[in-house]
Amino acid sequence: MAFQGKKLMDDPDDAVTDFIEGLVETYPALHYLDGFPQIKVVLCSDISTDKVAVISGGGSGHEPAHAGFVGEGMLSAAICGDVFTSPPVDSILAGIRAVTGPKGCLLIVKNYTGDRLNFGLAAEQAKSEGYKVEIVIVGDDCALPPPRGIAGRRGLAGTILVHKVAGAAAEAGLPLADVAAEAKYASEMVGTMGVALSVCTLPGQLTSDRLGPGKMELGLGIHGEPGAAVVDLLPVDPVVSHVLQQILSKDTQYVPITRGSRVVVMINGLGATPIMELMIASGKTVPKLQVEHGLAVDRVYTGSFMTSLDMAGFSISIMKADEVILRRLDAPTKAPYWPVSVEGDRPPTKLPVPIPTSCSRKNDEGSNRPQELSVQGRILEAAIEAAANAIINIKDCLNEWDGKVGDGDCGSTLFRGAAAIVEDMRNYYPLNDAAETINEIGSSVERVMGGTSGIIYSIFCKAAYAKLKENNLPFVESRQWADALEASITAISKYGGAKAGYRTLLDALIPAASILEEVLILYIIFISWSRIRYRLQTGGSNLYS
Amino acid sequence: MAFQGKKLMDDPDDAVTDFIEGLVETYPALHYLDGFPQIKVVLCSDISTDKVAVISGGGSGHEPAHAGFVGEGMLSAAICGDVFTSPPVDSILAGIRAVTGPKGCLLIVKNYTGDRLNFGLAAEQAKSEGYKVEIVIVGDDCALPPPRGIAGRRGLAGTILVHKVAGAAAEAGLPLADVAAEAKYASEMVGTMGVALSVCTLPGQLTSDRLGPGKMELGLGIHGEPGAAVVDLLPVDPVVSHVLQQILSKDTQYVPITRGSRVVVMINGLGATPIMELMIASGKTVPKLQVEHGLAVDRVYTGSFMTSLDMAGFSISIMKADEVILRRLDAPTKAPYWPVSVEGDRPPTKLPVPIPTSCSRKNDEGSNRPQELSVQGRILEAAIEAAANAIINIKDCLNEWDGKVGDGDCGSTLFRGAAAIVEDMRNYYPLNDAAETINEIGSSVERVMGGTSGIIYSIFCKAAYAKLKENNLPFVESRQWADALEASITAISKYGGAKAGYRTLLDALIPAASILEEVLILYIIFISWSRIRYRLQTGGSNLYS
Repeated sequence: MAFQGKKLMDDPDDAVTDFIEGLVETYPALHYLDGFPQIKVVLCSDISTDKVAVISGGGSGHEPAHAGFVGEGMLSAAICGDVFTSPPVDSILAGIRAVTGPKGCLLIVKNYTGDRLNFGLAAEQAKSEGYKVEIVIVGDDCALPPPRGIAGRRGLAGTILVHKVAGAAAEAGLPLADVAAEAKYASEMVGTMGVALSVCTLPGQLTSDRLGPGKMELGLGIHGEPGAAVVDLLPVDPVVSHVLQQILSKDTQYVPITRGSRVVVMINGLGATPIMELMIASGKTVPKLQVEHGLAVDRVYTGSFMTSLDMAGFSISIMKADEVILRRLDAPTKAPYWPVSVEGDRPPTKLPVPIPTSCSRKNDEGSNRPQELSVQGRILEAAIEAAANAIINIKDCLNEWDGKVGDGDCGSTLFRGAAAIVEDMRNYYPLNDAAETINEIGSSVERVMGGTSGIIYSIFCKAAYAKLKENNLPFVESRQWADALEASITAISKYGGAKAGYRTLLDALIPAASILEEVLILYIIFISWSRIRYRLQTGGSNLYS
Repeated sequence: MAFQGKKLMDDPDDAVTDFIEGLVETYPALHYLDGFPQIKVVLCSDISTDKVAVISGGGSGHEPAHAGFVGEGMLSAAICGDVFTSPPVDSILAGIRAVTGPKGCLLIVKNYTGDRLNFGLAAEQAKSEGYKVEIVIVGDDCALPPPRGIAGRRGLAGTILVHKVAGAAAEAGLPLADVAAEAKYASEMVGTMGVALSVCTLPGQLTSDRLGPGKMELGLGIHGEPGAAVVDLLPVDPVVSHVLQQILSKDTQYVPITRGSRVVVMINGLGATPIMELMIASGKTVPKLQVEHGLAVDRVYTGSFMTSLDMAGFSISIMKADEVILRRLDAPTKAPYWPVSVEGDRPPTKLPVPIPTSCSRKNDEGSNRPQELSVQGRILEAAIEAAANAIINIKDCLNEWDGKVGDGDCGSTLFRGAAAIVEDMRNYYPLNDAAETINEIGSSVERVMGGTSGIIYSIFCKAAYAKLKENNLPFVESRQWADALEASITAISKYGGAKAGYRTLLDALIPAASILEEVLILYIIFISWSRIRYRLQTGGSNLYS
């Protein structure tokens, strides 16, 4: 049953007008021609008429094509029709008059009868007004076998590559005949085939149910017309294989690409295809072209360039490349939707970047349990063991409490951590270095506890370690322990997002830190008083030495 | 009922890996780190460690975020987790080690507990290894009112703007503390709210039917979590109004934007939203910000930057702008998905570009019926009238024939053209100028006939006109008429795509042209022979004068 597709728009009749309004708001250099919205011509504000103008256009619904490719180095103007409707002759003529100077203009037209005729009449009219006009018609569809009769092969996403070649040739200052010749040559070097997972919905209309669940369409058109075949949905790998076979078919010989050829490839989203899926298709396409078809892939363009409203799916365009075409494709342009950072030589295979070795300050023997423990090492071992055993002993009790509010595994999780600490300590904790030992506790906990609590306790230890290492003292004083606890609490709060009173472990840690701080002050007072008393008793004058 | 969404992928478990493969195939400067695919870190091949490294990442499914923003001037590395799953600490640490030099690194993290903890632990670990590390957490969601408890506000598309500010600050050579301060400031200046028309489908899973037909969700999250409210689908205008109100709400005061503020705005597609619809949303957003909220809109970024797999819908982010932020946003970057051609001053309103006056060679009095007809004018008038009347007389007959193969209006269509020609000729055809008269016939036909045939006959006349004008003779010779007919046939064939034998009007025109050519040759032979005979008779020697 047909259904109502959802769209972000107001009056469906204003869709194209509203699109152009948004486009010119987004890109400061793009403007529309007077007569808008009847005349829907998008052009650059800084029109230079001392070069050949390159003009394209057609029905709307293929955004960003063509208006998104207007800009220095690509299109001089885009003539927009209503959705899937060729623009009228008057609009095309207005566009030609607006951007064409003495060097003339090239019209690049996708091969659809309406576009051919309207652009054709506008071209003849413009010629009769004294403009130099050339026209190149692009029919890159490879889905259907020849002969294709009066309609010929449809114009698809390969047209975008032709735009770029022509735009760059014009920008390079070539005369009209040469720009047209390069565009025509490029149009003969490119083949395209598309695959749709859904049909598109025209603004304000119902969505066709032509394509049922679990089905996909091969060789679709970009106006919602039925494709060459409806087949069961397949994984992307065989779909890409089939599409490449069709484009490069030796039977149709649509493109003169043979083993050893250099090519560029465009993976084009049809409107509703996420970047993730387009990139997956690209990742499958390139090695197939290289390995199965023996081609050198010089450039890969992945994105949504020539769409069909909200259709899900993609098309692949392959263009035979040579030095001239690559130079044109790589030439800079200000057209907003021409992909950036794709130019430049590609290595035959992508090698992973090696991970540099850690620049940890940790020395190797630091991670070993020393032969003989220092005084602090023995104290640390006793304290860790006591704490771990305390946790091990209350495992069931903690599970029981946790069972009342959660999933009842708190005791087991903490038990895993405590047991691992006890075992790892015996094996390799460098107990004579308190900071490194704390670091190792963090690693043990992270390894065996897992989940959020594993990370939080690990952050606790790592933050304490970083703080203790700041001074890098052989013997850790009480003051440093207190500071390390503060650093741990700060880190847990920062990364975990909790504060006192949020009913997290901070509600235990914060009071503990306060008590430690108080005890420490009492201890310092006691120490100081002891020293003063000692000095007074011994008659010494240097209070603090 | 839940249903199986369609996706272009192979094994759903490999979706992220396959995405990264395609990404690095597409962009020559992007590479992945060794340890791939367990460690999924995308970085630049030309890593410069003499500047602060800016690192981001998180769960995948938000493409192009974050890997698509890796590049000089933006991110140094992106750490990719599985779909909607925070990357593990080891991956983050590997990324930090790979791109961080003596100036340290800034981690920009979207506010989700998993990301905070994993990036937090990696940060602490890296610090303990001697790296300078700062972390900025972005929570730009404005959908839900405060207090937001332990989780806080979610990180959404505003994060991309923070990336750009930080990346440009780092590129400018600033020390870590300053880069972190700029990023933190930017994160406090931006607010975001999203609207979904569909829920997203996780790879390999069923699609939830949470959102029924005719419904939309306000204040969604980018991980498929339910939004703040489900409402009836509305046109985009009121949706945009609501979203802007929420972001700029004086109750929540999430962003310090008040009347008179300068802002930049990002219209972000959620994965399956066509450019057309995003641009429509932009076109509605900008004037509302200007007029209803009294803001100066300095930049507009429209595109899909931070998505939620294949979700349809969009989010709007508004960032308070100042000179520093604008300079950072405008700074060049090689990151593939940062939008181009959006920088530069925007006029308060877009004025249409005036259409230049036609540079037609046609002189004004040319389009008027002359007071007195020349010999050729009288012949032309008689010929046109005879031809038009012939068509007028067979109107019904043509309709009847057309009714057998088509819609039976061929006679009526041609009648309209012929009648208009007769009437316009009496009123204003410049009959003494044959070329201009043919041009006017084309205009009459185009005006009243419409459809494909109107354009084709009009092309016929315009092409003939352009050919006749080449010589610009006052009196058109038979030779020129024959050449003009040839030009017309060529134009119709070129723009219409038909050839002889395709059962179009060319099947009548081509023989007519041949006959005309034959007659012309006979005529020339006859004329030549007459002249020779005359000269022979009169004894003249100059054969052709």
